[in-house]
Amino acid sequence: MELLGNHILSIDQFERPDIEKIFSTSDLLLPYAKRERITRVLKGAILSNMFFEPSTRTRISFGSAFNILGGEVRETTGIEATSLAKGESLYDTSRVLSGYSDIIVMRHHEAGSVNEFAEASRVPVINGGDGDNEHPSQALLDLYTIEKELKSKNKTIDGLRIALIGDLKNGRAVHSLCKVLCLFDNVTINLISPEKLGLPSSIKDSFDDSSVKFHETNDIKKGISDVDIIYMTRIQEERFSDKAESSKYKGLMSLNQDIYTKNCEPNTIIMHPLPRDSRPDANELDPDLNQNPNLAIYRQTDNGLLIRMALFALVLGIESKLEDSASDVIWYSNK
Amino acid sequence: MELLGNHILSIDQFERPDIEKIFSTSDLLLPYAKRERITRVLKGAILSNMFFEPSTRTRISFGSAFNILGGEVRETTGIEATSLAKGESLYDTSRVLSGYSDIIVMRHHEAGSVNEFAEASRVPVINGGDGDNEHPSQALLDLYTIEKELKSKNKTIDGLRIALIGDLKNGRAVHSLCKVLCLFDNVTINLISPEKLGLPSSIKDSFDDSSVKFHETNDIKKGISDVDIIYMTRIQEERFSDKAESSKYKGLMSLNQDIYTKNCEPNTIIMHPLPRDSRPDANELDPDLNQNPNLAIYRQTDNGLLIRMALFALVLGIESKLEDSASDVIWYSNK
Amino acid sequence: MELLGNHILSIDQFERPDIEKIFSTSDLLLPYAKRERITRVLKGAILSNMFFEPSTRTRISFGSAFNILGGEVRETTGIEATSLAKGESLYDTSRVLSGYSDIIVMRHHEAGSVNEFAEASRVPVINGGDGDNEHPSQALLDLYTIEKELKSKNKTIDGLRIALIGDLKNGRAVHSLCKVLCLFDNVTINLISPEKLGLPSSIKDSFDDSSVKFHETNDIKKGISDVDIIYMTRIQEERFSDKAESSKYKGLMSLNQDIYTKNCEPNTIIMHPLPRDSRPDANELDPDLNQNPNLAIYRQTDNGLLIRMALFALVLGIESKLEDSASDVIWYSNK
Repeated sequence: MELLGNHILSIDQFERPDIEKIFSTSDLLLPYAKRERITRVLKGAILSNMFFEPSTRTRISFGSAFNILGGEVRETTGIEATSLAKGESLYDTSRVLSGYSDIIVMRHHEAGSVNEFAEASRVPVINGGDGDNEHPSQALLDLYTIEKELKSKNKTIDGLRIALIGDLKNGRAVHSLCKVLCLFDNVTINLISPEKLGLPSSIKDSFDDSSVKFHETNDIKKGISDVDIIYMTRIQEERFSDKAESSKYKGLMSLNQDIYTKNCEPNTIIMHPLPRDSRPDANELDPDLNQNPNLAIYRQTDNGLLIRMALFALVLGIESKLEDSASDVIWYSNK
Repeated sequence: MELLGNHILSIDQFERPDIEKIFSTSDLLLPYAKRERITRVLKGAILSNMFFEPSTRTRISFGSAFNILGGEVRETTGIEATSLAKGESLYDTSRVLSGYSDIIVMRHHEAGSVNEFAEASRVPVINGGDGDNEHPSQALLDLYTIEKELKSKNKTIDGLRIALIGDLKNGRAVHSLCKVLCLFDNVTINLISPEKLGLPSSIKDSFDDSSVKFHETNDIKKGISDVDIIYMTRIQEERFSDKAESSKYKGLMSLNQDIYTKNCEPNTIIMHPLPRDSRPDANELDPDLNQNPNLAIYRQTDNGLLIRMALFALVLGIESKLEDSASDVIWYSNK
Repeated sequence: MELLGNHILSIDQFERPDIEKIFSTSDLLLPYAKRERITRVLKGAILSNMFFEPSTRTRISFGSAFNILGGEVRETTGIEATSLAKGESLYDTSRVLSGYSDIIVMRHHEAGSVNEFAEASRVPVINGGDGDNEHPSQALLDLYTIEKELKSKNKTIDGLRIALIGDLKNGRAVHSLCKVLCLFDNVTINLISPEKLGLPSSIKDSFDDSSVKFHETNDIKKGISDVDIIYMTRIQEERFSDKAESSKYKGLMSLNQDIYTKNCEPNTIIMHPLPRDSRPDANELDPDLNQNPNLAIYRQTDNGLLIRMALFALVLGIESKLEDSASDVIWYSNK
């Protein structure tokens, strides 16, 4: 698909060449993210960063990505503070706001809401997460991390062996990642979860038309023994109608250095979409893994900045104009 | 009045030449709002956007207007998060904040609060709405829309026939609009509301010294049959002490395409200060009007951006310097 | 200590030459704060302004200080809206956020939290206040104000006589100020508070190794009779577990023009870290002092902007590069 001027709503929009284009653009943007160079290419552009559902990392990384490219950010957080609370339709909110900005990022707790919003918008809209539905920039940054981490070990996504662990039912990051992995060849996925939190059958069905092979288990030690990448997730408490129900699953799927050493192949990479729940009763990834060089979770969030910069660059069509307004960084930076 | 360096607190400040100056400045700013040109004329200036009462469109449009002119925005939303909650006087808040910024926009739920704040401020203050009192930029954008829409039909505000509909008692937008219409010749206003939500007599008294003629009715079909413009408003729930009371009026004044076709002159323009309540029990303007080319509500909010840019430009005295720091837009835009 | 690239966590970090460097940098920045000149020296830099505890003046002044130097600000307010609420550790939040920004200012209600955050950060962190522990930029702006006010009366901090009044137990501004005064010669401090709200003995112990002399009293009239500076503070309600307890102290320590005239030496300077509680039952500094030219409270907050600009400039190493990207202000300003 053409990205220029278009909405980014679902990982389903992308074919493999699109993804390669996004990744090569991300590579190109690295000197700016690393503060070796400054660009002002988006000078005068305004991002409306609409987070109707709480978010720290996604909200700030979209905002920072836009600032690094030279644009300005107008932000809204929380639904109470908005006209939606006075009975305004998403259609009206979208028509109006798209008159105030050049591009919109939106997160909302209701599945499908961002699509509805985008239909009414007069400027491109990027989905920052709609309920348990989609979070396409997360899937892209996860895949970009997988590619970079594998490359450092002379491997490719074609042939990938990955373990997805935790709340596979409610985690939208996992759903989008599964979909996008279908574009690659010879991928094997170990699905590791408590029985009631398994991957929805609609996602498993999508494997049928692909070369993905998958195995399901609730035995984490077995599931992580023969993979390149462990992708751990958090029990999505906020998606359970009954909180007591969610707490039953806390801590069932947990990884620490000892389990890792005893069960994994050397240099198995560890990822997590974050936030990880570090409270003692959850502890998905034990802090004793923090010194493990294969823990890629912060490289993963750093990649999130790059991917979001790339999406802005491609949708707004400035990927070839970065250096025209570029200059050296003159303030202290050790990035 | 001289706008340079002054507060904008009430629509009463303006005489007709002031309004003409604001409108001609808005016209001048159109290429920047439409993204044909970028200007950085307010480079280095800081707007303090203080919204002690929730707002989406007014808050964002003031912020975006300042960004489009090249300035930076520091924002505060909600009263709990502020020193006012620790017993600080508006006087202190104003003295202090005006040391951190070059201009302040303020909204507050208490009538008169923005005036009190402005008296203590060391920089210009623009009223973004104080309770049921004033919202001068809304009145200006409404009037600007009226002028532009009439012009496209070879009419002028002198001679205007307008129907104001809905909660005329509590709607500050309506109050300010009535006041400013008194500056024009030969205006006829149809006031259409439930009996208990009629226009306050203080506002009606202001018609006495003007050439405005007005008629009151609760029959919407009759009231909209002989006007150039229909100005619909929302029942201002948040101004009722008793919510049950407010719900009695919901849906009483409602317009749809069928009523419009059967009762209005051809090409009668439809306006609304927004947000419109689109919940089924309210439905002030039915969605079936969305395809009606005379529905001007989004042109109206687009004009809000222009009017707010013009107010900043005139108060900060840069209306003749826009092109000195201007350049072409190099990113994608279809505005 | 070297400030370049380092965290600013505690007033204890500074020796007298460091403070002199910060103050001379603040002096240098005055033309930019006064809007006589614009600089864009921090073009492309991003401040993450993280206020997990409510704040108006500190939050906005840090943000404005960064904007005045040409940088961009990404802001987070309130703890509910963040990943910390989903069980994320401060360590993770810090690792991740420091990938999105070039410097971080953080406020948090828990003493020690900012230090923990800074340890994990990959960019410099400035403490914007952690519980009742530290608020170093407040201490620096207080000291800077003391120096400037004394200088106008041909005095120096060496030899200073100061009265600290109010909630000396819970006020972190007072604690930090006491510590930094120990670096100077021949300082006399009158500690004036209700008996149960006296200065903690840990702070008084720090006077032992210094030349500070102190006296304790609960008689405000006696305590203010022989000082150069009165430093009034607010009862820190939010630090009391029992609100009824805090209200017993409200209004006990109160200053007005009459008490001032009858008891103070001529031209005794009045300071307050603000916000001052102006509700009738508190009224720490009566509004009838607002016309007293020795009331320095707004000069004090203006100095806060300068000090925060200086901290950014020194930590990011651009104090000698300000004029390279400077230009004249072309918009209206009467500062």
